[in-house]
Amino acid sequence: MRVVALGEPLVQLNATSPGPLRYVHMFETHVAGSELNFCVSVVTTGLQCSLLARVGEDEFGKAVIEYGRARGVDVSAVKVDPSPTGVYFIQRHFPVPDRSEVFYYRKDSAGSKLSPEDVDESLVKGARLVHSTGITLAISDSARQAVERAFQLAPRRSVDTNIRPKLWSPERAREALRRVLHGLEFLFVDPVDARIIVGEEDPDAAVRRFREEFSVETVVFKMGERGSRVYVDGKAVAGPSFKVRVEDPIGAGDALAGYFVGLVLQGRSVEEAIRYASAAATLVVTVRGDTEAVPDLKEASRFLNSQELP
Amino acid sequence: MRVVALGEPLVQLNATSPGPLRYVHMFETHVAGSELNFCVSVVTTGLQCSLLARVGEDEFGKAVIEYGRARGVDVSAVKVDPSPTGVYFIQRHFPVPDRSEVFYYRKDSAGSKLSPEDVDESLVKGARLVHSTGITLAISDSARQAVERAFQLAPRRSVDTNIRPKLWSPERAREALRRVLHGLEFLFVDPVDARIIVGEEDPDAAVRRFREEFSVETVVFKMGERGSRVYVDGKAVAGPSFKVRVEDPIGAGDALAGYFVGLVLQGRSVEEAIRYASAAATLVVTVRGDTEAVPDLKEASRFLNSQELP
Amino acid sequence: MRVVALGEPLVQLNATSPGPLRYVHMFETHVAGSELNFCVSVVTTGLQCSLLARVGEDEFGKAVIEYGRARGVDVSAVKVDPSPTGVYFIQRHFPVPDRSEVFYYRKDSAGSKLSPEDVDESLVKGARLVHSTGITLAISDSARQAVERAFQLAPRRSVDTNIRPKLWSPERAREALRRVLHGLEFLFVDPVDARIIVGEEDPDAAVRRFREEFSVETVVFKMGERGSRVYVDGKAVAGPSFKVRVEDPIGAGDALAGYFVGLVLQGRSVEEAIRYASAAATLVVTVRGDTEAVPDLKEASRFLNSQELP
Amino acid sequence: MRVVALGEPLVQLNATSPGPLRYVHMFETHVAGSELNFCVSVVTTGLQCSLLARVGEDEFGKAVIEYGRARGVDVSAVKVDPSPTGVYFIQRHFPVPDRSEVFYYRKDSAGSKLSPEDVDESLVKGARLVHSTGITLAISDSARQAVERAFQLAPRRSVDTNIRPKLWSPERAREALRRVLHGLEFLFVDPVDARIIVGEEDPDAAVRRFREEFSVETVVFKMGERGSRVYVDGKAVAGPSFKVRVEDPIGAGDALAGYFVGLVLQGRSVEEAIRYASAAATLVVTVRGDTEAVPDLKEASRFLNSQELP
Amino acid sequence: MRVVALGEPLVQLNATSPGPLRYVHMFETHVAGSELNFCVSVVTTGLQCSLLARVGEDEFGKAVIEYGRARGVDVSAVKVDPSPTGVYFIQRHFPVPDRSEVFYYRKDSAGSKLSPEDVDESLVKGARLVHSTGITLAISDSARQAVERAFQLAPRRSVDTNIRPKLWSPERAREALRRVLHGLEFLFVDPVDARIIVGEEDPDAAVRRFREEFSVETVVFKMGERGSRVYVDGKAVAGPSFKVRVEDPIGAGDALAGYFVGLVLQGRSVEEAIRYASAAATLVVTVRGDTEAVPDLKEASRFLNSQELP
Amino acid sequence: MRVVALGEPLVQLNATSPGPLRYVHMFETHVAGSELNFCVSVVTTGLQCSLLARVGEDEFGKAVIEYGRARGVDVSAVKVDPSPTGVYFIQRHFPVPDRSEVFYYRKDSAGSKLSPEDVDESLVKGARLVHSTGITLAISDSARQAVERAFQLAPRRSVDTNIRPKLWSPERAREALRRVLHGLEFLFVDPVDARIIVGEEDPDAAVRRFREEFSVETVVFKMGERGSRVYVDGKAVAGPSFKVRVEDPIGAGDALAGYFVGLVLQGRSVEEAIRYASAAATLVVTVRGDTEAVPDLKEASRFLNSQELP
Repeated sequence: MRVVALGEPLVQLNATSPGPLRYVHMFETHVAGSELNFCVSVVTTGLQCSLLARVGEDEFGKAVIEYGRARGVDVSAVKVDPSPTGVYFIQRHFPVPDRSEVFYYRKDSAGSKLSPEDVDESLVKGARLVHSTGITLAISDSARQAVERAFQLAPRRSVDTNIRPKLWSPERAREALRRVLHGLEFLFVDPVDARIIVGEEDPDAAVRRFREEFSVETVVFKMGERGSRVYVDGKAVAGPSFKVRVEDPIGAGDALAGYFVGLVLQGRSVEEAIRYASAAATLVVTVRGDTEAVPDLKEASRFLNSQELP
Repeated sequence: MRVVALGEPLVQLNATSPGPLRYVHMFETHVAGSELNFCVSVVTTGLQCSLLARVGEDEFGKAVIEYGRARGVDVSAVKVDPSPTGVYFIQRHFPVPDRSEVFYYRKDSAGSKLSPEDVDESLVKGARLVHSTGITLAISDSARQAVERAFQLAPRRSVDTNIRPKLWSPERAREALRRVLHGLEFLFVDPVDARIIVGEEDPDAAVRRFREEFSVETVVFKMGERGSRVYVDGKAVAGPSFKVRVEDPIGAGDALAGYFVGLVLQGRSVEEAIRYASAAATLVVTVRGDTEAVPDLKEASRFLNSQELP
Repeated sequence: MRVVALGEPLVQLNATSPGPLRYVHMFETHVAGSELNFCVSVVTTGLQCSLLARVGEDEFGKAVIEYGRARGVDVSAVKVDPSPTGVYFIQRHFPVPDRSEVFYYRKDSAGSKLSPEDVDESLVKGARLVHSTGITLAISDSARQAVERAFQLAPRRSVDTNIRPKLWSPERAREALRRVLHGLEFLFVDPVDARIIVGEEDPDAAVRRFREEFSVETVVFKMGERGSRVYVDGKAVAGPSFKVRVEDPIGAGDALAGYFVGLVLQGRSVEEAIRYASAAATLVVTVRGDTEAVPDLKEASRFLNSQELP
Repeated sequence: MRVVALGEPLVQLNATSPGPLRYVHMFETHVAGSELNFCVSVVTTGLQCSLLARVGEDEFGKAVIEYGRARGVDVSAVKVDPSPTGVYFIQRHFPVPDRSEVFYYRKDSAGSKLSPEDVDESLVKGARLVHSTGITLAISDSARQAVERAFQLAPRRSVDTNIRPKLWSPERAREALRRVLHGLEFLFVDPVDARIIVGEEDPDAAVRRFREEFSVETVVFKMGERGSRVYVDGKAVAGPSFKVRVEDPIGAGDALAGYFVGLVLQGRSVEEAIRYASAAATLVVTVRGDTEAVPDLKEASRFLNSQELP
Repeated sequence: MRVVALGEPLVQLNATSPGPLRYVHMFETHVAGSELNFCVSVVTTGLQCSLLARVGEDEFGKAVIEYGRARGVDVSAVKVDPSPTGVYFIQRHFPVPDRSEVFYYRKDSAGSKLSPEDVDESLVKGARLVHSTGITLAISDSARQAVERAFQLAPRRSVDTNIRPKLWSPERAREALRRVLHGLEFLFVDPVDARIIVGEEDPDAAVRRFREEFSVETVVFKMGERGSRVYVDGKAVAGPSFKVRVEDPIGAGDALAGYFVGLVLQGRSVEEAIRYASAAATLVVTVRGDTEAVPDLKEASRFLNSQELP
Repeated sequence: MRVVALGEPLVQLNATSPGPLRYVHMFETHVAGSELNFCVSVVTTGLQCSLLARVGEDEFGKAVIEYGRARGVDVSAVKVDPSPTGVYFIQRHFPVPDRSEVFYYRKDSAGSKLSPEDVDESLVKGARLVHSTGITLAISDSARQAVERAFQLAPRRSVDTNIRPKLWSPERAREALRRVLHGLEFLFVDPVDARIIVGEEDPDAAVRRFREEFSVETVVFKMGERGSRVYVDGKAVAGPSFKVRVEDPIGAGDALAGYFVGLVLQGRSVEEAIRYASAAATLVVTVRGDTEAVPDLKEASRFLNSQELP
């Protein structure tokens, strides 16, 4: 069973120390990007995942390809583009402890050149599910069109709203996301994005709207430190939250989505899937890098067992 | 509007790992010193601040000058002295987690050669306020005389008691500080120092003594994790404390004082000033270095907003 | 007064960042090994401690010797063996935050070649106490025989059960440990090991068994975050636990044992000894390395005072 | 006496280890940019230097401002632009040892938004000399127009050709540079650029062309490891080259230009100026960062003395 | 066209600073092993390369798999073994500058468990060439038998003698190597190994023996800083040596062999192949890690061009 | 056989990157001090060496004691003083590549409090040789008197002139050194110091003066990159110099002196002693830290063998 994701992989320059970036002397590299992160989690649960993307013809493009390959993500359809591979910088714990702030250098990047012509028709048609996020919709018209094209061809679809205020306005986000929500098998959203898209930030109210307006099947509503709630088949399953020391929260949502999708598609119950997915998301925030601490199933179990002790 | 501060700037060698210094293999440099730290915060709030000080004719002296200049502190009156620039080492989280211990190499340093002749009369007379601390009173007779001279000339005065047991005895501290407290516009003090100076460590009792004996106008009483209390105009305003992960607590008091003075002098209410000043002091403890994490007003707001969420 | 310990000293390669080892690019070296760690704590409390061990004829063997010597441990009886000095890697905070996992490279190491012929008869006979752990019993037959030989000669004996599932099976552990428990002056054990050895994990029940079956005098029952309990002379003294940020928990038990034994042998009360020993064990977990943060008595006092503030 | 330079300051991410960038895990930040580098050297020789530039309203923009200020460069005319501050990455010693390769992220950067309206008329008219480079001509039309505008207003002018193949074609470089060469007081050029601009790479031949076609006064012809040659007043003065271990050659040319201009404008002989400028350029290549190792005059003397020993 | 190599991949712990290992505090990880290194170079020249090997069921085993995969080596036939993945430590520049010394922890490692049953018959029969080294012959009987089995099945064969005195005696090396030399297509050897195997260290004399006794086709004789000589078709082609700053010489021979084999099998002339292979080997010594600086063909060209300048 | 040395041990803060100290962000600690360094080399050759010194009652004092002990130096006579342990900073490769510059913080340090009362009479009388340097004569009157006292008691004496311009004037150096030269068994000196002391920098001329005026027995004349010359028994033996990459030259002279004295006292020929001592001095400059790369005799042999290859 194969999942396909569309989106821009980037090189992340993560501050090795907390505080304002102008006093950070050392940056550490990681490969990231929401959809690549998603793929790594899907693969870790045991499914195949192909990334549709472009990278630059440069060292950072090679870094992306090699890292994806290392993690078992199928990058054979990733194209090389003459533009540079996008990068971004992460400022950690400032001005709000336990949160991170990003500084993007991805305008006109290779990744933003993703276009409908990159959508391999047989790959997408043969996939169990095609996934993308609000980030891909935001980075360029051609990337947005690529998502729309892939969603037309795909048997089933999944979206993580991931609205990034640094990339577009709420209005543009609302319009673009509403065009891809119809009939989704999975929707990942949080209160802020829900308010932008359907005008509601209360989980129950927002989910009702996603159901009524877009016939979304499963909604995973993410509420940060208060855990999550999965709405499916008329019930709402609570996802746990765990208290850990935060090194960098970025990447948690992608791990949650990828792990959850991966497990549900393999027949695990929603209750089990959201528990494991929450474990994966939690471990991701304990390190720098978005995917290095994605646990395998055995490791996720060990984490969950350790949390259930009194 | 210009503030002037007198005191010794130093190069700080901060342990890159916690525990006893003899097992620390790497030290990271920062520029620090209570009054320079104070100036950085004052400048960050929007006022000008001039430092009266001496530095050595060496690389560390240049480091001090360059850092002060970078942060917008007026260092044009800082003199170069043939003695070496003082340095100190910081041991962190040992033997008491979340606290730091300092090892000074500042005896006979350039900074300790500060003397009354360094007190630029027109600069001091034209300042809105002149600030110093117990550290400057402790490091040498000439430095103490410089403070006394500046306080004679200054229109208004501010003191942070900052008694450092490694620099002098309680008796000497008591005597020297009592000579400069009279008529202060701002006094920053904590229970331990209050007991040394006026024999009381209870805030209300101590402040009564500072009022009666020295006619101090505003007293900011700092109580560590229990926040602070500002006594002014017959009222006591509580300053908040925030729970964050401590990397190095040194510099928090200087940020509190500089930020508070800066905002009050610009007409902010005491309530608002102590809230912002507490935010600044809190962020400072999340990093190594005394001033790198002093937030600007917008960042301080973001921090405060994040803390007021349920 | 001299204590003797038998066991394998190793070089520890500690991950400089948390998460799965395959993404850790830098490892930091420390010298460790349960019995060497024990000796460092014993020496820090003021007694002499000799290590009976073998190290390789290589740089890491020299590292062990030099570190032991630096810390004041008597390593004059440590032999040099043609096999390599054992090493191990530590993965931290993954998959369970605040816990560590070890990867050993100690099979057929120099340390495992410890044998009865290395047991210096006069040294052992003249010692106040001979100490070893389940690790030494596990690493090789000859090392186990060395412990048995030393225990025959020793006036008094101490054991920390320290069963490491990566080194042997519960069955082998149970059998080997039961052979050395008889008449111990000190036994250090935790619920998991107690269940393996005497089939009980409840402190009171387990201790009753250790008393009845093996006539053990003092049992220190370690319960992790719930502190410890010392059973001696018909009473049970509670040992405190302190809440600190964990960097690497490895080494805490060794510090507890060494500090406790050191203080009790010097006449301190059990109540005081377990309080200081708990302080030492707590500080050890705040750093990487097993012994670098063992406090001296004055530092332990300062830690304890800081914890007793409201 | 004041010099003015126009150009884009950037944040440099320098590889902490040699080899292909995709295997470099840590990058170290420096502030750089050809014209800012030039200014630092000018200031170090004792003149004032103002930078006309734009930086982003972000942490890296603040880093540029603070570093410029620290080094004594006048950055009061630097404007803040909503675009991001440009950054670039340096790969060192690969595939050619002792050479570096850059990867730019400066397209549509704040610095590239430099425009004629940023050219402070009184500052430029009052300057002793206005300097820029081929890089500023290449980054955008508005930046090129800013240089042309400044050159119209300036009493005297200086250019370092600095043709970067990653920024533009030889044809565009040739055309743009030929528009600013007329009547220059100083021209810095190397064989490759000379061939592009005047079709000659031989120093004598090229200089003849620069003289005849553009009436350039002083030409500094840079020949890498073979030193340099200064053509002025009908003579050619040889500049030395020194053999040192190369860490990163980037920035050497800027130091040579800034140091040479600074000294000549202060009345030093061409012979002395090129010797000191070569010393500065040489020391710059021994470290990472373009300006950190620019020596002051005393340090340059010490370097020169050390080289003249047998 | 596919090449197959048999041998043990390891995790390399490389000293981050020169000098005796016992004073090195930080070690940096790389994935290495002579045959894996060989494969990376073969792949970089454009051929496919499969590794036959075993790794442990541990983080370091995963590191090996992920790195191999990242570099495009086919690791699908690598088996997972319950023993630990081998590791080794590198001491650099001591006691001989520019040379390295290794400390192995590979006895009974997963890699040493390679056995004839791991030799995938169809893979080996279908390969263009099967390669191994003296290291694989040395690490265990089963590994040696695996090589012998693969060589029986393989259409053509290649050997790098790579005699490591830390792994076996000259006698054992001589005997084992002589059993696999017959009819080799490629033999890589140096004077020391040649003396052990055929009793001659002079290139011409040794090659005559390899020809006469073993009918080896192409012999690449490596002479360190004096370059190499390729004996084939009755002629001897000189391979260049280049002068660069050495960071760690380990891995150079593997790059030479892999690059040379890769290019020759693709039809490049011996002259060109040895020139490019020497470039690859040279760049490898400028960094830590055995394969990170293997250049692609374009990069190797740029290196060669830079060296041919006067 | 025991050697005794008198002098101040210090903690060295060595710049982790070359260039001006004000741009160095990380400093690495080492334990150093000329006489301690000397002792480490003496011990490494196989003799015992006791250090007479004072250290502070602080972490750096403990660092000195532990490092000395680790290296086998007898530190049992080192006293603890209430003053702080001296420290110094090293700037490397700037402004002169391959040379280092020191910035001392040792005024009124614990080490400078060394006094005649610290001279253990029986230890000194029983020693084979007592060694000190111009540094100890320079740091304080009491330290100088301690040397003079020890030299009165000592059977044989050795001096390394080591005149540090940052510590005293040539006049004071000349006077103090001339008081201790009489009848020395070993004198280590270089051209600059020789000119200060006897007015000659030519080796032959200077040695004649040392012989005639002071009856010195063996003079080791150190000439940097030109090697050394040993004058003894009417002959002059040339000491080799080796070309290596310099990381930090500090400590080379101490290694030369300690190694030479150690070997000569054990009966090695002057020719062999100076060759081995030169090897030790050479290896020391390839690393940071003064003593970490002192080779043992076997390592020194390997170095020497590697240098004698064509």
